[in-house]
Amino acid sequence: MTRAFNEDDTLALTRRLADAAWTAIRPHFRCGVETENKKVGTAGYDPVTLADKAAEDAIRTILKQERPEDGIDGEEYGAHEGPSGWQWLIDPIDGTRAFLAGLPVWTTLIALVDPDGHPVIGMIDQPVLGERYVGAPSGAFLETAGGREALKVSDCQDLREAIIATTDPFIMTPAEQGAWTHLRHTARITRYGLDAYGYARLAGGTIDLVCETGLQAHDVAALIPVVRGAGGVARDWRGNEAKLGSQIACAASEAVFEQALISLRRSAI
Amino acid sequence: MTRAFNEDDTLALTRRLADAAWTAIRPHFRCGVETENKKVGTAGYDPVTLADKAAEDAIRTILKQERPEDGIDGEEYGAHEGPSGWQWLIDPIDGTRAFLAGLPVWTTLIALVDPDGHPVIGMIDQPVLGERYVGAPSGAFLETAGGREALKVSDCQDLREAIIATTDPFIMTPAEQGAWTHLRHTARITRYGLDAYGYARLAGGTIDLVCETGLQAHDVAALIPVVRGAGGVARDWRGNEAKLGSQIACAASEAVFEQALISLRRSAI
Repeated sequence: MTRAFNEDDTLALTRRLADAAWTAIRPHFRCGVETENKKVGTAGYDPVTLADKAAEDAIRTILKQERPEDGIDGEEYGAHEGPSGWQWLIDPIDGTRAFLAGLPVWTTLIALVDPDGHPVIGMIDQPVLGERYVGAPSGAFLETAGGREALKVSDCQDLREAIIATTDPFIMTPAEQGAWTHLRHTARITRYGLDAYGYARLAGGTIDLVCETGLQAHDVAALIPVVRGAGGVARDWRGNEAKLGSQIACAASEAVFEQALISLRRSAI
Repeated sequence: MTRAFNEDDTLALTRRLADAAWTAIRPHFRCGVETENKKVGTAGYDPVTLADKAAEDAIRTILKQERPEDGIDGEEYGAHEGPSGWQWLIDPIDGTRAFLAGLPVWTTLIALVDPDGHPVIGMIDQPVLGERYVGAPSGAFLETAGGREALKVSDCQDLREAIIATTDPFIMTPAEQGAWTHLRHTARITRYGLDAYGYARLAGGTIDLVCETGLQAHDVAALIPVVRGAGGVARDWRGNEAKLGSQIACAASEAVFEQALISLRRSAI
């Protein structure tokens, strides 16, 4: 590390970034004019792209002022490195399909990754619900208007009792779908379409396993400190520590993860 | 009709019922002790059943006092008819799997059905979000802490541009799954796991088509006034007006419905 890390200051800045993102996104959520404008043609109004870009602009403007020495990697405007070696990973709207459907399960993802590539701060912000899931070296917390409470994964130890989630089984390869189908038939309840909010609820103790593929660094970096800070495990489909992308499996316990791995390992890449 | 119907009075009562339901449900949502208690055995703690029963109790207590002449049909305690011929249909927690997963897309459904079997009042209440979708003879409205606004479906006219939803494609028969797969490949975006909240967002203009099967009267009655009051169509899979159960298809426009019907009709029962 090339500089001292101050958790409180960094979290305060991260909250400012999320607030700025929501201010930029809010006019576009459930704005209700998407369909009629889209008929104008392919260059027509696209609320999610507009909201995504406006939010990432707002975040970059603050970071350039407050942390000019840090790098930034955002979903909309690409990556650049900074002299400090630290990098902010930004996904202004994770869950664009939920956003377009007017569902309050999209999130703004903000992570700070240290020079060794490890995410140190992660935030999963859902502003419609007023829920901010935060992971940091001191732990993981749910911040709402009502206060701040520690996040803790469930004590589920048995996949047969588990509530499991993936965003979209139809984007999986046939081998991955086979693994997922096995998990789905074993588990108690399956949920779809949650994107990062599934990991937030894993940290909140109401979902026990989330498995996904095809993820990118800015989809993943924010999740890891939240899940681990809440006592969960974050791995790839071989059972190694999660990398910033590709196949991810997060579980409430080692036991649930090991049971899931029996299926997942067959389609690990 | 055996008595005068007053919309304002009835809506005020319906809001009281929904408030009472949430007061009863709230202690059980994300209560975080489910897994450890379930190990006690099959008779262990089940938060959704406790919450369902407590909420239906609360609603029945108010209705017995305020509308003793009306019948009640609730998901938990069954049906009885009343001398007025009017009947309240209650599903305290529609979307029990979303509830157990800690997701804010379960709803409380309350409907008032006239002596001819037509739902006159429908309410889809999501108290975590503070969203109350109301359908009545005067129209459909979204009530929040910020006020009351008219609900209006999208102007989507093309299934290829549509956002579509169903709760669980895996509970469908093979023929129904074939119809759904055809729809899914035609539409732009597909969402799962929303139960009645999908119809609420159809009325709110962000979802364009919802198709489901295996529904019961208390799942359906509340949806119809909301969807129709917002300008949508509510039919069965043959294209007839929706009945209180079985196969339901609600669309933002006649055009989207007619395009969906090409697929649905083949598996209509």
